[in-house]
Amino acid sequence: MLSYYFKCRRGEVGGNDFTTKAGRRVQQIILLHISCSVRADTSGNSLRMSRNPLPLPLNALLLSQIWGEKMLKILHRLPLKSWVINAGKSALNEDQACCEVVVARRRPMSYCPPSTPSKTPTAKRRNSLPNGEALGLRVEHMMGEESEGLVFHYWALFDGHAGSGAAVVASRLLQHHIACQLQAVIEILRNFHSPPPTVLGEEPDSSPYLQGNPPGPHRALTRAASLRGAAGAPSSPSSTPPPPRFYMEKRVQHESLVIGAIENAFKEMDAQIEREKQVYSISGGCTALTVVYLLGKLYVGNAGDSRAIIIRDNEIVSMSTEFTPESERQRLQFLGYMQPQLLGNEFTHLEFPRRVQRKEVGKRMLYRDFTMNGWAYKTVEDEDLKFPLIYGEGKKARVLATIGVTRGLGDHDLKVHDSNIYIKPFLSCIPEVKVYNLTQHEHGTDDVLVMGTDGLWDVLTNEEVAEAVGAFLSNCDPDDLHRYTMAAQDLVMRARGVLRDRGWRITNERLGSGDDISVFIIPLMYGNRQP
Amino acid sequence: MLSYYFKCRRGEVGGNDFTTKAGRRVQQIILLHISCSVRADTSGNSLRMSRNPLPLPLNALLLSQIWGEKMLKILHRLPLKSWVINAGKSALNEDQACCEVVVARRRPMSYCPPSTPSKTPTAKRRNSLPNGEALGLRVEHMMGEESEGLVFHYWALFDGHAGSGAAVVASRLLQHHIACQLQAVIEILRNFHSPPPTVLGEEPDSSPYLQGNPPGPHRALTRAASLRGAAGAPSSPSSTPPPPRFYMEKRVQHESLVIGAIENAFKEMDAQIEREKQVYSISGGCTALTVVYLLGKLYVGNAGDSRAIIIRDNEIVSMSTEFTPESERQRLQFLGYMQPQLLGNEFTHLEFPRRVQRKEVGKRMLYRDFTMNGWAYKTVEDEDLKFPLIYGEGKKARVLATIGVTRGLGDHDLKVHDSNIYIKPFLSCIPEVKVYNLTQHEHGTDDVLVMGTDGLWDVLTNEEVAEAVGAFLSNCDPDDLHRYTMAAQDLVMRARGVLRDRGWRITNERLGSGDDISVFIIPLMYGNRQP
Repeated sequence: MLSYYFKCRRGEVGGNDFTTKAGRRVQQIILLHISCSVRADTSGNSLRMSRNPLPLPLNALLLSQIWGEKMLKILHRLPLKSWVINAGKSALNEDQACCEVVVARRRPMSYCPPSTPSKTPTAKRRNSLPNGEALGLRVEHMMGEESEGLVFHYWALFDGHAGSGAAVVASRLLQHHIACQLQAVIEILRNFHSPPPTVLGEEPDSSPYLQGNPPGPHRALTRAASLRGAAGAPSSPSSTPPPPRFYMEKRVQHESLVIGAIENAFKEMDAQIEREKQVYSISGGCTALTVVYLLGKLYVGNAGDSRAIIIRDNEIVSMSTEFTPESERQRLQFLGYMQPQLLGNEFTHLEFPRRVQRKEVGKRMLYRDFTMNGWAYKTVEDEDLKFPLIYGEGKKARVLATIGVTRGLGDHDLKVHDSNIYIKPFLSCIPEVKVYNLTQHEHGTDDVLVMGTDGLWDVLTNEEVAEAVGAFLSNCDPDDLHRYTMAAQDLVMRARGVLRDRGWRITNERLGSGDDISVFIIPLMYGNRQP
Repeated sequence: MLSYYFKCRRGEVGGNDFTTKAGRRVQQIILLHISCSVRADTSGNSLRMSRNPLPLPLNALLLSQIWGEKMLKILHRLPLKSWVINAGKSALNEDQACCEVVVARRRPMSYCPPSTPSKTPTAKRRNSLPNGEALGLRVEHMMGEESEGLVFHYWALFDGHAGSGAAVVASRLLQHHIACQLQAVIEILRNFHSPPPTVLGEEPDSSPYLQGNPPGPHRALTRAASLRGAAGAPSSPSSTPPPPRFYMEKRVQHESLVIGAIENAFKEMDAQIEREKQVYSISGGCTALTVVYLLGKLYVGNAGDSRAIIIRDNEIVSMSTEFTPESERQRLQFLGYMQPQLLGNEFTHLEFPRRVQRKEVGKRMLYRDFTMNGWAYKTVEDEDLKFPLIYGEGKKARVLATIGVTRGLGDHDLKVHDSNIYIKPFLSCIPEVKVYNLTQHEHGTDDVLVMGTDGLWDVLTNEEVAEAVGAFLSNCDPDDLHRYTMAAQDLVMRARGVLRDRGWRITNERLGSGDDISVFIIPLMYGNRQP
């Protein structure tokens, strides 16, 4: 069994080794924490490093790289590299990151924790450890050949809040949950010439649905016919004949299985944090942005307000959406409307441009409901004096006056200050997964995927990031393996800015980011190469 | 009081006149219904018209056109024209349309029906007529000067199902509900130099929120600070001091008021159909696609599966999204999960690629939950033998095995066949409103907005429509005022196809549309002109 531990103390430059099953010792990627608490300490001592941005003594992990048709038989150690730089300005660096090559071995599904909805409660797993060793996981890091497993490359950023516990745990374990979900479909994914079977363990020919039912009247079912109560409508068993034979079977793509695996892995990760939060004192919550490279495609999963973009030929391809009180307002308002008890009689699901005053009862004020994107006027009632469920604008927007991000992991104990109102029911742990087919493009040496926490994107636009990365990389020696590292460092420094008389400033005298900043820059050109 | 009535019988070429308050008699736009029941009658008699697509004897309504800075003082009768062609292949033509210039006069809000959420039930309006005369509406058609009102141009398509009642009523009344909602904000919209006030009837200077609170610690509220229970969090009144002063006031744009007005107008239209469906025997439901041209912008509101696109410089700008069981799957599954009683113990909120058989209980089958976009395998349980809430693919996808569109008006009585399960809770009457600023582009004579019901888009792609319209218009005399009419007719005929030995065929031997087809083509070039 693989033994490894990934350790990153706040405010330190830390790295870690781990040992593979074969006994090889491999240096783990370095997480660099530039420790400089801007708000608390501007005396300069801890800033030296950033004022002289030198090529950092990063020890790179040589990630094994697989490609092409023989991908599962031949593993090449190509120099696909990526680095994460965490530049924490605060004493508490709540950003965490992970970068690994993971192998999901072919196993019976019973090894995986349940991820499917069931009426029976999930059996609690006792004595499990937060590093997953007792999870029943059979996932292994490996750098050599792997004939029965499925190899994926994995990068992830976690932005913690109200403590770093959830971020630390998720950075250690989420990849295993993804591997675990993929275990059930390894053979299906490898057999990419056949579509995934609807039912496992059935011979295709024995299924009545695959025998090519000829198109009958049912196939041409129109809306009008359906409304007249035609085929497919269920009915009370006592009064009607059994349902008609099926005339339709949806084809599911391989890609959808990977998306489903990532979605369910996030759910399982969140459930594990909930189960183990007491035993291991897992504090707070975190956003999660993951990239899985598998079988020629990048799967970018995002739950939170981090962001990933692809820069290709100086053009920007958006690979994620931020989930914030503003972008998810209608979902949250709808929930508050449907389940008002979640608002604890202190909040209203309606949105107003500001809080309503008692003296305004009876006047007409701007509002919007969960159905609306626009605004209208309503007569203010007593009920409207409650605090709005969604309140504030931009980075100051909050759910239940508490949290500024609406998707992520953890936060199970988070309550509205001085109340018994839980925030968690309004949060979602489900990522949006976007897919990018690497093999459909010919990538140059400057084409990259940039992942960053909100500390980066709060102060730099996509265009500024693309321009900065493009300019930086084009000035480097194309053979310099550290160029992506340095570009990531450059981005972090641009977002942090430099200390002037009146505070931290970036270009055009704008304020630098006061948040943690973490960046991955992943070169895409290795996607072009065939072994 | 204006008296008008708009009459369109099925299968007829119909038109109607109306009289303005000033006594002028104006010819109303013609709705052309080409009556040819493809499925029932292919003998040819009723098809003559379409086999010889001649310029139709359309009587155009000269819509008054306003523009530029003096828009509310000077009305110009520019030849902004548009036509609707309904080519019903079935005996029952359930498509309806409307095209009008509407004036919302400045009135106290009390004239409008309530549109805002309230604890008090809406007072039922007795003796109201479906043409809105008893609605208390003060909306008027006018072709002359209008100094106190707000003029908007209006086009709408309604695709009925399970009867044409809802479509007919909506085609007559929805524009009045929009005007009614706009009445409350006429002065605010006209005063486009000042942002909409948060509270009506307050002097801006008397509001404490507009006195420019300096940025204090509250403004710089970070997520972490908020999580520590800082400013803005409500608390139980008994134990804590009153909430702090507000430090934030959201600015609402004029545009948002128009969007809100259209959203609430759809809600009111739906509520009116519900109130009056018994008295006036309003059958079925309908989709609704509306275009409002107001103060230089086009507001495209869509609830259903019709579609609007703008063709500009041969490029396509999408102006609507279709709402179907597939596009709204997760919203509907979430509702079924939250309120399982709506599924009547006959449906499951889970989706499967096909219906589950009893013999498959215990096996692993593909599924997806409301949280998922991807698919995964789950062990089949008895519960999964129920019919899926969302079932089918593409045009055959259904909600509760009944309806293939998830937004629209009406359908209050619609139930699952042979059951007491209502469909309406799963349907939304709320449109998505997209905005297009006409003044930001210089439009040529071939730049148009195309609106069409699904009968058009089911068989022609956006690109095919853009190509067909472009080719048709460029072959016309630019001064021919009938060119847009003929282009609309051409589109309808292309989607219908021609009758061959083996059925109705369009290009590439594809099947023509068997549905009603309705098209508006609206030229955009008049947006360029200044008075």
